[in-house]
Amino acid sequence: MERILTTRLAQHVGERVVMEGWLYRLRRMGAINFLALRDGWGIAQAVIDEPAELAKLAPLADESVLTVEGTVEAEPQAPGGYELRQCRVHVLSPASAPPPFELNKRVLKPSLDVFLDHAAVGLRHPQKRAIFRLGAAIMHAFRGYLHSQGFTEIQTPKLVATATESGANVFPVDYLGRTAYLAQSPQFYKQIMVGVFERVFEVGPVFRAEPHNTARHLNEYVSLDAEMGFIHDHHTVMQTLNGVIAAIIAHLGQSHQAELALLGAQLPRVPEAIPEIYFPEALEMIWKATGRDVRQEPDLAPEDERWVGEWARQEFGSDWVFVTGYPTAKRPFYTHPNPSDPAHSNSFDLLFRGTELVTGGQRLHRYEDYVAALEARGLDPADFAGYLEAFRHGMPPHGGFAIGLERFLMQLLGLANIRETTLFPRDLTRLSP
Amino acid sequence: MERILTTRLAQHVGERVVMEGWLYRLRRMGAINFLALRDGWGIAQAVIDEPAELAKLAPLADESVLTVEGTVEAEPQAPGGYELRQCRVHVLSPASAPPPFELNKRVLKPSLDVFLDHAAVGLRHPQKRAIFRLGAAIMHAFRGYLHSQGFTEIQTPKLVATATESGANVFPVDYLGRTAYLAQSPQFYKQIMVGVFERVFEVGPVFRAEPHNTARHLNEYVSLDAEMGFIHDHHTVMQTLNGVIAAIIAHLGQSHQAELALLGAQLPRVPEAIPEIYFPEALEMIWKATGRDVRQEPDLAPEDERWVGEWARQEFGSDWVFVTGYPTAKRPFYTHPNPSDPAHSNSFDLLFRGTELVTGGQRLHRYEDYVAALEARGLDPADFAGYLEAFRHGMPPHGGFAIGLERFLMQLLGLANIRETTLFPRDLTRLSP
Repeated sequence: MERILTTRLAQHVGERVVMEGWLYRLRRMGAINFLALRDGWGIAQAVIDEPAELAKLAPLADESVLTVEGTVEAEPQAPGGYELRQCRVHVLSPASAPPPFELNKRVLKPSLDVFLDHAAVGLRHPQKRAIFRLGAAIMHAFRGYLHSQGFTEIQTPKLVATATESGANVFPVDYLGRTAYLAQSPQFYKQIMVGVFERVFEVGPVFRAEPHNTARHLNEYVSLDAEMGFIHDHHTVMQTLNGVIAAIIAHLGQSHQAELALLGAQLPRVPEAIPEIYFPEALEMIWKATGRDVRQEPDLAPEDERWVGEWARQEFGSDWVFVTGYPTAKRPFYTHPNPSDPAHSNSFDLLFRGTELVTGGQRLHRYEDYVAALEARGLDPADFAGYLEAFRHGMPPHGGFAIGLERFLMQLLGLANIRETTLFPRDLTRLSP
Repeated sequence: MERILTTRLAQHVGERVVMEGWLYRLRRMGAINFLALRDGWGIAQAVIDEPAELAKLAPLADESVLTVEGTVEAEPQAPGGYELRQCRVHVLSPASAPPPFELNKRVLKPSLDVFLDHAAVGLRHPQKRAIFRLGAAIMHAFRGYLHSQGFTEIQTPKLVATATESGANVFPVDYLGRTAYLAQSPQFYKQIMVGVFERVFEVGPVFRAEPHNTARHLNEYVSLDAEMGFIHDHHTVMQTLNGVIAAIIAHLGQSHQAELALLGAQLPRVPEAIPEIYFPEALEMIWKATGRDVRQEPDLAPEDERWVGEWARQEFGSDWVFVTGYPTAKRPFYTHPNPSDPAHSNSFDLLFRGTELVTGGQRLHRYEDYVAALEARGLDPADFAGYLEAFRHGMPPHGGFAIGLERFLMQLLGLANIRETTLFPRDLTRLSP
C-alpha cells in the first residue's frame, strides 16, 4: 500500500491508505482516542478504537515515528474535515524521551533562547517550519526570476586572502599555516563575473564578525546577490530588483498560502514601479515635516527610514520605496557617483515597511576610476590587484544588489528577532547546535 | 534602439540593431576590416569599412567594451552565417592594457597556473565560460528535480562549534575570541532537518583542510546534498539519486548543446536503473578476473574502481554503477549496517566512468544506536549532544547523498584537473584571486 501525505486525505475518501509521521498528540477519551499524526506537510487525525492499537501508542513519548494504516472518511469535526478509521498502528522509531517543551501547542511557549537551544526538535513545530518553507520559496523565486532574465548562477569562494571592503569585522581563519578570512560578501567576485556572464547571481553564506548582539544582525547569514552589466545607470538595476521582489511575492501568494495563514502574515502589494526619492530631498522633506534638521546627516537614521516608509505608504499606497543618491563618501569605494551631482552616488536602498531591506547601486567600471577612488580613501590599489585586473581589461557599466534572506523573512512576517528566521543562528554567544 | 544579443542575429535580418560586448578580435584587411564582438553568450562579426569607425577601434586593446550599431545581413562566410554591416562604433569602456594572454584563440595557451593567476580575465574565454554555464545548469537541474519530488531547500551554518565527523582536516576560525570550525559538510544539519521537512537539499560550500595538492581535491568546494526520510533502505536513496542524475543529464542535453560542443563533451546515457554490485562481490570478481587478491581490502583502490566501471560498461552498457555494502567500520559512525550482514553497510558509492562521484547511504535513526556506534569508536556522545537531540525525539529511517559539483564537471568533461572546474580555486598555495 503506498503512503499518502496527511494533506492528501480528501483525494482518498473510502480508501484504505497508509500515512507516516510523528506522534503529534494522543487524546485519550476512553473508548475512542484521537491520534494526531504530523508529517512533513501537515497533521491528520486517526481514530484509535481498538485496545490493541491503543496499547501500542499509550507508552510512547510524543514525537515517536509511526506508520498508520486506516480507511479515509469525511468527518466535519476532524481538523481538515477528514480522518482515518479502523486504524492499525506500527511503531517505526520510538522517541527516547518527551520533547524538551510542548511541541503540540499552536504557539510555542519557551523563550527564544530555550527554543534555539533545542532547535533540532523545536523546528518541527508547524509555525517554525512554515517560516523556513517560506525562506526556501524566496530563494526559489529569486533564482527563477533571474534565470528567466538571462542571469547565470555562480559560486564564489568564501575563503579569501584579504578582507573584502575593509579590514574590520572579518573572521580570520587558520588556513594551513597562513591567515585567510571569511568573505563578508561576494561583491568583488560577482563584479568580476559580469565580465564573463554579463548577468550573475549567487545565493550563499556571508560572514560578519560583529562583536555585538542585536535583534537585527547575525554573524552568518544568507545573501541573495545579483550583478548585471550593460546598464544605463542604477535605475536599470532597480527595475530588475523590482521584478525580483514582485516575482517573490507573487510566488508566495500562489504557492504558500497555508504557511502565510499559519503565521498570520499579509503579503504586500508590489507596485509596477516602486516609488523613488532622492536622498537629499528625503532629508529636506523630513526637516520640513518634522522640524528635525537632518539636512547635514550622511545617512538615514531608523526613524528617518520609518518616516520615508510612512510617506511612501500615504503618497503612493506602497510598502516599498527606493531611496537613491546616498552620499558618495559614505558608500563603499566602488560606488559610482552621480555624474551630475558627484557628492551623491548612483546607489540605492530599498526600504520595506520603513526599514532597509536591500542595498545596491551602480559600480565604477573604469580602471582609472578605481585607482583614484582607492587612493582617495587612503587604500593601496596593489592590495586589490586581483580584483582590479577585471577593470584593467574592459568592464561595462554595471551594478547590482544584495538581499539578506533572513531580514526579508523577518520583515515580511513581522517577527521581532532575526534569530527566528535562521535555522541555527550564529551570534556573539551562539555557535551551536 | 534596443540591444540584441550576438546569438540573435538570425532573427533580425535586414534590420538596424545594436549589439554590445567586448572587442574579441579586430582583423585588419585593408579597406575591409572584421570586428569580432563577444557578449555574454556568443561572438558576432561586424564589418568595419568606414575609416572614421576604424579609427575609433584601431588604438584599442582587446577586451575594450563597445556598442556597435549596424544592419544585419546573411553572409555564409561569417561565423554563424550573419554579420553586421554599415557599422557605427561607440567605445563604452576602453581596456587599459592588452589581456595577460591571448583570449581570442580557440584553445587557451597558458599553463593552468598562469591561467588561474589571471582568472578574473581568463574566465571570459568561451571554453572556460562554457564550463561554468554547465556548472550552473547542473545546480539548476539538481534543485529542479528535487523540488519536483517534494524536497525543501535548507541553508545550514558553515561556522560550527565542533568538527563534523572527526577532528581532522578542519579549518579553525577565530570566532570573536573562541575557536570555531568551518563545516566539512552539512551532514548533521541535513539529518536534523529530515525531522522537520522529511526531504531536504542544500547547495553550498564545504571546507576541507587537506594539506596536500592533488588534481582531484580542493580545500573549498560546492556540495550538492540531499537527505530524505521514510525510506525503505539505501535503495530508496539510490532511486532518488538515479532520478537526479537522469534529470541533470537530460537538462544539459536539452539546453546546453552549444557549451557541450565547444568543450567536445559527450553526454552519457543514464539507465533507468543504474546497475549495482555488492562490495564483497566486487572484490571477489576482481580477484577472479585479474588475479589480484583484494578480498580483504576495506575499500576500492582507484584501479579497482576502474575495473568495476569497465565491468558495468561491458555487462550493462552503463557509464554508471552503484557499489553497495562498503565495510561498516570504514564508513562514518552514522552509517546504517546491513541488517543481514552487519560487517557491511547500507551505504553506496556511485561510480561514473570508473571513478567515485557520489557517496551516500542509509543512516542510523535510533538514539540508542547512535550512542552505541559513537562509543564503539571511542567517541563521547556528549560531544554530539545537539545532533543527538534529533534522534532522542523520534527520527524515521532516512538517508542521503552528496555530489561534489566540481568533480561532476571534471568527470563529465574529461578534464585533467579539478581546478579547471572551480572559478577561483582554493588549495595548498592558492587563496586568490
